[in-house]
Amino acid sequence: MKIAIVGATGLVGLEMRKVIADYFPPTTELLLFASKERPTDGVLELSQSKELLQSCDFVLNAASSEVAQELKTWLRPEQFLIDNSSAFRLDPEVPLVVPEVNGEFLKSRPQVVANPNCTAIILCVALNALKNPGFTRVVVSTYQAASGAGIKGLEELDRQIKAAGLGEEIPKSEVFPAQLFGNVLSHNTAVREESTVGAGYNDEEWKVIEETRKIIDIRHLPISATCIRVPVRRAHTESVSIDLKTELSLDALRAAFAKAPGVKVVDDWKSNHFPMPIESQNQDLVYVGRIRKDAFLPKTVHIMISGDQLRKGAA
Amino acid sequence: MKIAIVGATGLVGLEMRKVIADYFPPTTELLLFASKERPTDGVLELSQSKELLQSCDFVLNAASSEVAQELKTWLRPEQFLIDNSSAFRLDPEVPLVVPEVNGEFLKSRPQVVANPNCTAIILCVALNALKNPGFTRVVVSTYQAASGAGIKGLEELDRQIKAAGLGEEIPKSEVFPAQLFGNVLSHNTAVREESTVGAGYNDEEWKVIEETRKIIDIRHLPISATCIRVPVRRAHTESVSIDLKTELSLDALRAAFAKAPGVKVVDDWKSNHFPMPIESQNQDLVYVGRIRKDAFLPKTVHIMISGDQLRKGAA
Repeated sequence: MKIAIVGATGLVGLEMRKVIADYFPPTTELLLFASKERPTDGVLELSQSKELLQSCDFVLNAASSEVAQELKTWLRPEQFLIDNSSAFRLDPEVPLVVPEVNGEFLKSRPQVVANPNCTAIILCVALNALKNPGFTRVVVSTYQAASGAGIKGLEELDRQIKAAGLGEEIPKSEVFPAQLFGNVLSHNTAVREESTVGAGYNDEEWKVIEETRKIIDIRHLPISATCIRVPVRRAHTESVSIDLKTELSLDALRAAFAKAPGVKVVDDWKSNHFPMPIESQNQDLVYVGRIRKDAFLPKTVHIMISGDQLRKGAA
Repeated sequence: MKIAIVGATGLVGLEMRKVIADYFPPTTELLLFASKERPTDGVLELSQSKELLQSCDFVLNAASSEVAQELKTWLRPEQFLIDNSSAFRLDPEVPLVVPEVNGEFLKSRPQVVANPNCTAIILCVALNALKNPGFTRVVVSTYQAASGAGIKGLEELDRQIKAAGLGEEIPKSEVFPAQLFGNVLSHNTAVREESTVGAGYNDEEWKVIEETRKIIDIRHLPISATCIRVPVRRAHTESVSIDLKTELSLDALRAAFAKAPGVKVVDDWKSNHFPMPIESQNQDLVYVGRIRKDAFLPKTVHIMISGDQLRKGAA
């Protein structure tokens, strides 16, 4: 098997390389592509390598939506594109796949598969545990890591941590709209204007809303997200409130999460051990905990979840 | 006027001293008390100073609930106790006061006034803006600062930041159940056991729920809180979803927050400038932003708020 990674030098591309090394036989041939601005040893410049790219069985795109659009025009009929950009996510012709949730879409071997937003993936793996009885409403608040903004976001946080530890002045932020170290920031994507649908939501929140509806296949689900960055290097955490169609007991809720694919229950009430980004990072499972019933609304459930947005969420 | 501060050497006690210096005439006489374990210059040992304490007009308690119970038995009829502990907060005889929300309770000069939980205060100042039309449901997720756990919690985070900046091993956590630096933690209070009302909520969340109901005087309001610590030194941030009794336009919502006492609207959609703990700290206003209507539920509103939990929330 011959696999192309486009955007191979970014955080997601690097993580794709790790995942392939973990899961694929060593005979797998890997071709790495990047734009001209990111030349590295062993990485090909995409614009000059169309034929090489067309020789691959699978193309994984970890670059932009613009690159994804271009790559799609290059595809030979027998090639597959798995696209991590948002280019095709809401295209009704393209399946938006979280394997544990709707992996059945892969059986028909679609030529283009869209990989969802990282925050939405982590959310959907957890929600999938409760697909029976199903949902009437979901409210999410996120605690998102700096590395979700790429290498430059992570390096900016690291520089600020270093300066703080040395007692020096904190370097000014350039990637994030304000200092992330020691702070909490509304997500750095643009806020949707007043005349648009979803006015006031930022683009990250709107992706979570629209993509979650498509993935769990409830197109009219009332869902809201508030996406916030916290000074964490890696792994996103989410506080999720779910209104179920019918009431489930606490034991039934625990059992549902325990048997859900891709979920690890971390929910130790006595020792106060719950999902945390420093534990959920660098592996594939979504940690679920703080499983509890609302004190007043019998059909409402609250959980806290955490997952590696680079590995599980993107790569 | 003669004012006693009990617990004068803790973070809240220190902040009370600053607030009194800011707002009271220099002729105000201040007597500082602390337990034996925290002796400092100019601070009296409480257990040996009953008569001095009884000479004060106002007693501010920044120490424990146990101390509050004791202080109440010491009060002379003409003395007032303003208690920051949770000892009397849910006592139906004791007003639980956030001045902007229900300050009218102070007019009858009650001898004991309870000061609410810091997270609940910040929430109630914001909710108060929407008391007309009123609420049918509130869902809160918090981003709470290390200093909410006192000096020791703050020092633990500071030690971990310093080690990280120097590239050293992060010191083990003793105050918090796990490393707070670079992480996100479910709140460090105990989780309520399975047989109790509010099972699965931690004590901080349960305070927010019960106290908010009392302060905004809707005893049967369905409200839920998920309280989470983030690596921030000071000021709590909260993501709040509110179902209103009747729909308000975006302009009406903005106007309501703009004129609400104790609120500063920080809501610049274009420049991505919203409430942040590094801006809301060390002052008295609760910052409110990300004001938006739910995309699907016309009566639902989402906001992000931030306020100094030591100064506004406790002191």
